[in-house]
Amino acid sequence: MEDQIFTYSRLRQFSLEIFKKMGCPEDEATQATNTLLSADLRGIDSHGIARLVGYVRLWEANRINAKPQVKIVHESPSTAVVDGDRGLGLVVAPKAMEIAIKKAATCGTGWVAVKNSNHFGIAGYHSMMALSHDMIGISMTNASPLVAPTFSVERLLGTNPICVAIPAKEQPPVVIDFATTTAANGKLEILQRKNLEAPVGWIQNKTGGSSINPHELRDGGALLPLGSDRDHGSHKGFCLGAWVDIFSGVLSGANYGPWVPPFVSFLAPPSDPVGEGIGHFFGAMRVDAFRPAEEFKSHMDNWISRFRMAKTIEGIDNIIIPGDPERESETIRMNDGIPLNHNVVKDLEGLGIKLQVKL
Amino acid sequence: MEDQIFTYSRLRQFSLEIFKKMGCPEDEATQATNTLLSADLRGIDSHGIARLVGYVRLWEANRINAKPQVKIVHESPSTAVVDGDRGLGLVVAPKAMEIAIKKAATCGTGWVAVKNSNHFGIAGYHSMMALSHDMIGISMTNASPLVAPTFSVERLLGTNPICVAIPAKEQPPVVIDFATTTAANGKLEILQRKNLEAPVGWIQNKTGGSSINPHELRDGGALLPLGSDRDHGSHKGFCLGAWVDIFSGVLSGANYGPWVPPFVSFLAPPSDPVGEGIGHFFGAMRVDAFRPAEEFKSHMDNWISRFRMAKTIEGIDNIIIPGDPERESETIRMNDGIPLNHNVVKDLEGLGIKLQVKL
Repeated sequence: MEDQIFTYSRLRQFSLEIFKKMGCPEDEATQATNTLLSADLRGIDSHGIARLVGYVRLWEANRINAKPQVKIVHESPSTAVVDGDRGLGLVVAPKAMEIAIKKAATCGTGWVAVKNSNHFGIAGYHSMMALSHDMIGISMTNASPLVAPTFSVERLLGTNPICVAIPAKEQPPVVIDFATTTAANGKLEILQRKNLEAPVGWIQNKTGGSSINPHELRDGGALLPLGSDRDHGSHKGFCLGAWVDIFSGVLSGANYGPWVPPFVSFLAPPSDPVGEGIGHFFGAMRVDAFRPAEEFKSHMDNWISRFRMAKTIEGIDNIIIPGDPERESETIRMNDGIPLNHNVVKDLEGLGIKLQVKL
Repeated sequence: MEDQIFTYSRLRQFSLEIFKKMGCPEDEATQATNTLLSADLRGIDSHGIARLVGYVRLWEANRINAKPQVKIVHESPSTAVVDGDRGLGLVVAPKAMEIAIKKAATCGTGWVAVKNSNHFGIAGYHSMMALSHDMIGISMTNASPLVAPTFSVERLLGTNPICVAIPAKEQPPVVIDFATTTAANGKLEILQRKNLEAPVGWIQNKTGGSSINPHELRDGGALLPLGSDRDHGSHKGFCLGAWVDIFSGVLSGANYGPWVPPFVSFLAPPSDPVGEGIGHFFGAMRVDAFRPAEEFKSHMDNWISRFRMAKTIEGIDNIIIPGDPERESETIRMNDGIPLNHNVVKDLEGLGIKLQVKL
């Protein structure tokens, strides 16, 4: 069945009303909607409105608090730890990023670890908040364990994304945003929907053997760290995932590794938590804490231009500057609408009926 | 020919005398030696005493200043930019890391970008300086362009390593330290010496096609970013390399991308520099700026123990915790000596004769 196209404003209105029905205060429902839909606009469909049903189910299961008291529980001039009070990550994360930005304004840089939170949408949204302040933004989060470390058959890490957003002058910003696995879970979901096989190197089966079955995770398989196998550097992908897990989970006092509570409501969180909720980590770095902002941004323009004109492999028009595809998607989808898979539409319709909100 | 074994103290004495012959002050010759030989001890042979000849040649070509005035040229409470005055990166980098540690002591975190420097040895040495202060240490550097971005045939990035060192309590620290390519250049050098083919996915030829020839870089080929190809996430490896390049080069005012001066003296630096020398980036984060240090370190012990006991793929005894192999090498080589390839020994003997230092 074909995708159905929705305007941004229609999805926005729907999402806003749903979050309000959950009991979110008006401003937080707005924030949650903005964060969530930034994923649909930027073409990261797995993290957008398709997850709205999931957030509602976690709220119904009393695992999300719609009226959190988000607060700083520990701080230094350039750091803070924030307790998300089991709130929506979509709301907790921007609040934490604002604290990082405020600290950077006075101190040069600001670094905020968050505990007791939930899924925060796309990492890019939070990092990009720094750009208008002439700051570099950094965001990371740990997530439900789906990834096996190199040489292991156990799922001990999430897809643990990292985002670094860097401002430029005339050029658009560089926005690095990626899961620390060979392929993000969202890419696997696309293959599942289309009944296609996965490339070798994305997943392993329950004994650690190579698999191309996109449903392998149901049978005890695992996603592979960036690099796929030891010969191709999967230990480096494992290092990246570990780094994100430790900064997000151990620094903050959240859960980490296999203790990270699953995003889905039908899987119970581990009964022996080592911390509170899931964890995030944010950074903001004032560019002029290093060199004059105009100078830095001019050199970023030069960096981007030089890489943009890199000589390409035959048949390829140009290399991809990090952030380009998502920004292009944003322009297109804001104008032409957002395509939703028919299963997602069905889920949203069901949600609308249940909470009496018109899609 | 077999490797020749040298005691640590013998190589240390030799290296110290060579740096003194170059005109380094006693304390800086000692620092340079400590930094350099930490690579040999930790088993990263490509970055150790095998490079001593290279440093001397750059000094002879007047591209390394043996008596640098390393100074802060810009700062904020939590940041600084350091001008390395064309000094040995082996000396400039620890000085910069000390500044980061000092800033972290008062401000929670410290972040130092360095310009006008040279090759700094292994990233791990610098990050690990933070550990005894109960801080997390971070280090990065850009390097001679050998790596082609995804879809390009041009060498625009170095192998740009990242290191993150994280303290624990009873467990040894987690030390993440890796080149952001599928394989580090040093691994290619090992294959070259042994006349072995490279695995598919490490390198490409000058038209961007797959190659297994370890000498391909001589003919215009390139190392591949971590991930190897687009299907396996090489755009993520490119993102990592870009991140390191921008933090090390653009934030500091050093050269970046294809403008990074080559480490070898027989290749002239680009005639149109965009900055000064090569760049590094360092961070120090006081653990207790986030949560009590003992609490953090206990949870790190728990993190490490849990991953250490991960269920392994059949035939594998245990997974590798980042930092384990290097630490084991350190113990072994401190006791049993450091094996050097006969070509390296020949180079060092030649150097000894030239500068009248006994090996």
